[in-house]
Amino acid sequence: MNFRNTRITQLLKIKYPILEGGMAWAGTSILAAAVSNAGGLGTIGSGSMDRQLLTQEIKKIKTMTDKPFAVNIMLLNPYAQELVETVIEEKVPCVVFGAGNPAKFLPLLKENNVISMAVVSSENLAVRLERAGIDAIIGEGMESGGHIGDVTTMVLIPKLMDCLSVPLVAAGGIADGRAMAACFALGAQGVQMGTRFLASKECQVHEEYKNKIIKAGIRDTVITGEKLGHSARVIRTKFAKRVCELELDCPDQAEEMLVGSLKRAVVNGDVEEGAFMAGQCIGLIEQVESVKDIIEKTVFHAEKIFCGGQEV
Amino acid sequence: MNFRNTRITQLLKIKYPILEGGMAWAGTSILAAAVSNAGGLGTIGSGSMDRQLLTQEIKKIKTMTDKPFAVNIMLLNPYAQELVETVIEEKVPCVVFGAGNPAKFLPLLKENNVISMAVVSSENLAVRLERAGIDAIIGEGMESGGHIGDVTTMVLIPKLMDCLSVPLVAAGGIADGRAMAACFALGAQGVQMGTRFLASKECQVHEEYKNKIIKAGIRDTVITGEKLGHSARVIRTKFAKRVCELELDCPDQAEEMLVGSLKRAVVNGDVEEGAFMAGQCIGLIEQVESVKDIIEKTVFHAEKIFCGGQEV
Repeated sequence: MNFRNTRITQLLKIKYPILEGGMAWAGTSILAAAVSNAGGLGTIGSGSMDRQLLTQEIKKIKTMTDKPFAVNIMLLNPYAQELVETVIEEKVPCVVFGAGNPAKFLPLLKENNVISMAVVSSENLAVRLERAGIDAIIGEGMESGGHIGDVTTMVLIPKLMDCLSVPLVAAGGIADGRAMAACFALGAQGVQMGTRFLASKECQVHEEYKNKIIKAGIRDTVITGEKLGHSARVIRTKFAKRVCELELDCPDQAEEMLVGSLKRAVVNGDVEEGAFMAGQCIGLIEQVESVKDIIEKTVFHAEKIFCGGQEV
Repeated sequence: MNFRNTRITQLLKIKYPILEGGMAWAGTSILAAAVSNAGGLGTIGSGSMDRQLLTQEIKKIKTMTDKPFAVNIMLLNPYAQELVETVIEEKVPCVVFGAGNPAKFLPLLKENNVISMAVVSSENLAVRLERAGIDAIIGEGMESGGHIGDVTTMVLIPKLMDCLSVPLVAAGGIADGRAMAACFALGAQGVQMGTRFLASKECQVHEEYKNKIIKAGIRDTVITGEKLGHSARVIRTKFAKRVCELELDCPDQAEEMLVGSLKRAVVNGDVEEGAFMAGQCIGLIEQVESVKDIIEKTVFHAEKIFCGGQEV
């Protein structure tokens, strides 16, 4: 098993097959540059950005790295179309789509030599996107943080392997080399980590956010928005439990509470009204480390597992 | 990575580190004998049995195999105490506890040389049971069928590895050698499969049950009983969806619908009022095979993954 030269490292021209998950507010150009400089694929999480904000972030990251990087575009963002145009104008090497079907954008991206990937939580969308010309698929299990589907990584990745020809990246529940090795055993040629990079030195989220990740156990997340049609995994707080309770009887009030809640967590560390999106692997993360250490330890550990316990 | 000689094969004196999950009604002596004869650990799922019924099943399996086997005891069963006594009287090699804390039974079992294991969905119970003298822990992710917790296999197994000294078995989402290899990469020394054995030739469940597993996709399960305090993953049917709907407004009615619903699925293949317990890996199972083929293909495939694609 090769963890350094895979279909994903070849496609993306990166050193290690580790992608930064697309994280609105938390996935800044600073964090993305750190991931790219460490040999992974840094990803600007464009979230609800418009053209102007994204352009700024892209110009910023170009001053910090000459390595490939990506922009994640949430298809629920009303500015999605103009963000795709921005990516092309700015000659961003790669775009990752989330929360929808990006098929209509794929021909234009291909014409402009932008690599396209999409995050999926089921095989149906993945197969449709492969037919539409996507370059790679990121399968994301429901143990992941933020917006999620309902199938776990252990089941989703082999299913996608059985259905797809394009390269496959595994996401959801991956915080160390053991999970990277496991995902490769399941058939993935790369992994995506989000939560693990939140607890990195270079990540710009509020200290309270990082503290919560370090302290939490594997059972300390809840899923908000399940009844509202947009499930998202967040750290269990009084606020998150209150949202879950309100979803059934007062869905409008729950929706209102969620508006701006991620930003409040990221920017202000607001424990009263912030939604701290994170995956179940918070329970495996014990310290804030540099992005470089996270990436290298993960790859080395995965290699060690496959080399029968010998040092590499 | 060794898939034939592990702490689990040594503890249980079995050929392959594959355990049959404890399945009420479906885990008969016939299926358990087939699993043990094929080199795994067959498991009689005692479910709601009393002493007399379990004694019959144990006497029956002894006529079919001379290999080690286990009895699974659900601690919610009011006859749990007498089933423990039965296991000891009948000199059953191994007992697996589910749905509760079996600490009080462990000294007696140890005195009588019965190996004890327990299915857990969090590290807290696992650590308490290790202190109480359990011989091995089975960590079960929430992609599993039947009664489940809330953490996925990808996250639960590494966490348990970090907390435990006793041997560890992974369960939840495992239907083939890819998942077996993945679970070993995460740190397990054995795997438990339930759903995969439901779709075996030797399994005595109604043909409709097997058909449903073969036809289903990875998203074709739902969790019933979540609001009632006993979450169980079942195949998505009209019945299952109706139970989920009623749980909130008419919990008593939902409870009543669930009584006897597993038996109706197993014995009668009753699609109208049966609960077809099964894990998300139904979406990876495409044919009914013999237990021997299932076990050997799983081990051979896992070995192949770790041997860099060479035939073994």
